[in-house]
Amino acid sequence: MEHIDEIISSRWIVPVVPDQTILHDYALVIHQGKILDLLPQADATKKYQCRQSYHLQEHVLIPGLINSHTHAGMNLLRGYADDKPLMDWLQNYIWPAEQKWGCDEFVADGSLLAAAEMIQSGTTCFNDMYFFPEATARIAQNTGLRATIGLIVVDFPSNWASTTEEYFEKGLQLYDTFGQYPLINASFAPHAPYTVSDEPLKRIAALSHELNIPVNIHLHETLDEIPQSQQQYGLRPLERLDKMGLVNPSLMAIHMTQLNANDIALLADKGAHVVHCPESNMKLASGFCPVAKLVDAGINITLGTDSVASNNDLDMIGEMRSAALLAKNVSGNAESVPAEYALRMATINAARALGMDSTIGSLEIGKQADITAIDLNNIATQPVYNPIATIVYSSRAEHVSHVWVNGQILLNNREFCTIDIESAIKKGQIWFDRMNPEKSIPATQI
Amino acid sequence: MEHIDEIISSRWIVPVVPDQTILHDYALVIHQGKILDLLPQADATKKYQCRQSYHLQEHVLIPGLINSHTHAGMNLLRGYADDKPLMDWLQNYIWPAEQKWGCDEFVADGSLLAAAEMIQSGTTCFNDMYFFPEATARIAQNTGLRATIGLIVVDFPSNWASTTEEYFEKGLQLYDTFGQYPLINASFAPHAPYTVSDEPLKRIAALSHELNIPVNIHLHETLDEIPQSQQQYGLRPLERLDKMGLVNPSLMAIHMTQLNANDIALLADKGAHVVHCPESNMKLASGFCPVAKLVDAGINITLGTDSVASNNDLDMIGEMRSAALLAKNVSGNAESVPAEYALRMATINAARALGMDSTIGSLEIGKQADITAIDLNNIATQPVYNPIATIVYSSRAEHVSHVWVNGQILLNNREFCTIDIESAIKKGQIWFDRMNPEKSIPATQI
Repeated sequence: MEHIDEIISSRWIVPVVPDQTILHDYALVIHQGKILDLLPQADATKKYQCRQSYHLQEHVLIPGLINSHTHAGMNLLRGYADDKPLMDWLQNYIWPAEQKWGCDEFVADGSLLAAAEMIQSGTTCFNDMYFFPEATARIAQNTGLRATIGLIVVDFPSNWASTTEEYFEKGLQLYDTFGQYPLINASFAPHAPYTVSDEPLKRIAALSHELNIPVNIHLHETLDEIPQSQQQYGLRPLERLDKMGLVNPSLMAIHMTQLNANDIALLADKGAHVVHCPESNMKLASGFCPVAKLVDAGINITLGTDSVASNNDLDMIGEMRSAALLAKNVSGNAESVPAEYALRMATINAARALGMDSTIGSLEIGKQADITAIDLNNIATQPVYNPIATIVYSSRAEHVSHVWVNGQILLNNREFCTIDIESAIKKGQIWFDRMNPEKSIPATQI
Repeated sequence: MEHIDEIISSRWIVPVVPDQTILHDYALVIHQGKILDLLPQADATKKYQCRQSYHLQEHVLIPGLINSHTHAGMNLLRGYADDKPLMDWLQNYIWPAEQKWGCDEFVADGSLLAAAEMIQSGTTCFNDMYFFPEATARIAQNTGLRATIGLIVVDFPSNWASTTEEYFEKGLQLYDTFGQYPLINASFAPHAPYTVSDEPLKRIAALSHELNIPVNIHLHETLDEIPQSQQQYGLRPLERLDKMGLVNPSLMAIHMTQLNANDIALLADKGAHVVHCPESNMKLASGFCPVAKLVDAGINITLGTDSVASNNDLDMIGEMRSAALLAKNVSGNAESVPAEYALRMATINAARALGMDSTIGSLEIGKQADITAIDLNNIATQPVYNPIATIVYSSRAEHVSHVWVNGQILLNNREFCTIDIESAIKKGQIWFDRMNPEKSIPATQI
């Protein structure tokens, strides 16, 4: 008998790699944070002696979900302004609020609530872009979540940095500290082509290559930015990035609702990744990402919620569902983005975009034990003809029962293991009271 | 002090009528199944003495949600076939399964699970169309749910009736028994213009007028039915129904994804209602209902989930969210279908379409006490700047805590009061085992 850390037995296991696989009555064997074995339950109990075991009789295990686009620090701005188009929403609500309230504590307290929301809904890793990134990195590490933290760069001053130079300085300083944070990786996060000029973009291209880290950017999010870029630079935003050497396998192009055939060919040719945010795109009326066409072109597509200010949640189970439903109607083909592909977008595809597919994104032997368990024994999820379809089309965030990262349990039967949730909520309420909410309530009170 | 049945005090009350109203720290006073008063909590305790009181400190009360399009008897077919277009899905999966399994017991046991799912997610009334409608009526009445039960008519034989004449006979017989079911109303439910010929449609037009009950029909659901109708009848389906006198305020036109300007003008002119089913339309790739245009034309729009075989849930909170998000991107206007309007679609608009807006659909004095309470004190719903936006954009089915119909409590702090849920689930599992599920699992098992 081999002595190991944990055995998780489950009615179903969907490892995502290999494709189209549903294992019945299998067990995951975890040791020193990694998946040591994946075998039938009966064999596992003969072969291994474990310190801790979980018997999940009505559950399915999947790779921990990866949210490819978040602004975790914005969690205190959930519902701050709804039913507004992107530019009105940004310029008249979100940016002024950030200017007024943005600070390390605001971002840390918002990120803590975001971490709780993500863990509770089965997310184990997130790719973030926001001011005061050190606060979000700290919270992710302390709550046991894996994160890629964007080193934000934008031409205008914010409470975080006054000049472009300061964004780089602070970002690179922060990058140097990430050695202390084993769960944290870095990316570059230039905000958008219309908020970052050529010089900093070129510098990011060089640094991204040198440090071998991804580049996230809001790109072709709305129609307006295309003619604006053509007028200013004579190029579509994607073409402009390409000219600066940014369109390559390190690029995570976020949103991409406005795409012509050349754009798609360029993305495919250069091996760039697209981060699809269906709910945020719908809520801000930004446009429809042509997901089926991108799949056909062989482009790697991942899934993100965007922030709770434009979604309004961080629920990747709901996001998979929205992505699968919407893609069918946009393509006019009910076979587009089947459940199995939606799950890949939120797991292995995201790992690949983040350059982490050798360590996370699937339940394969040798990978880190980032795992989500979903209980399918609910009124709303029965009967289960196919657990993958049940996850995507019927299950909800509250059906997530257990979450592990590196084999550490973060959610145990719906209970938080690494977050003092009462204290987190209290911190949020103190902010809310301070932020004078009446101002943003449009409805009449009798 | 006046003696009354119940007082429900809540942090927020959104009565829906009047529009744009959020009441803080108010109480609903319930007596003999009706709303007797709506007043500040402090006044309620002075004025009334009640047998039962509820203090919902972090909750919002809304009118019970109305699902305008269900096939409750299909709940055992959730996930039976996914990622298929409408006609393939119907002809190769759903119709054969119905032919094999359809019977009173199948529909009753499915409807019981549907009732549980609806109650658990805040629905108090549903508008159903299915075979063996007596089974669904019985279940609704026994579980305390309000329902409008469709008297189905279709040209082809089913396990329920062999000839068109038999559909009418059985339907009208059933209609006569509804006096025994105080919570049940009737409607006519011709399946679709491509499955019901002129003769029965004309008879339905006459009977609907005579009995003063609504007519539900799947209409302009997919593109294909339009040229097919033009070829067969020389008319678009809606024009054909109009010719037979069916386009009037009794018509609930379900789906309506294919609409030209004439269609919209006709619907508006005749006062017909549109039942929008955004999730089912997306899942079957049926097309986009132009909701914003319908709103602009003054058409009354309600919301339905369709069955769990094409959704795959009966969650009206999720459906409001999908409707609000999708409408913005379809219209290109982020102000389309704001949260407040999404809530109206699922409450007062639906009551109006069902001809019941004098008794349900809003929390007004004199109306029946059909009420849903949603707990907004969750990680995923904080902070609450505007409770209506929080309901639509952030809350989920599991946040529904209490449900009342006619003042009778059906869900009390998430516990079912009228359903033996263990037994309901067991019945479902017996069916599932009988139905040989392997057949419909497309994925490989190792």
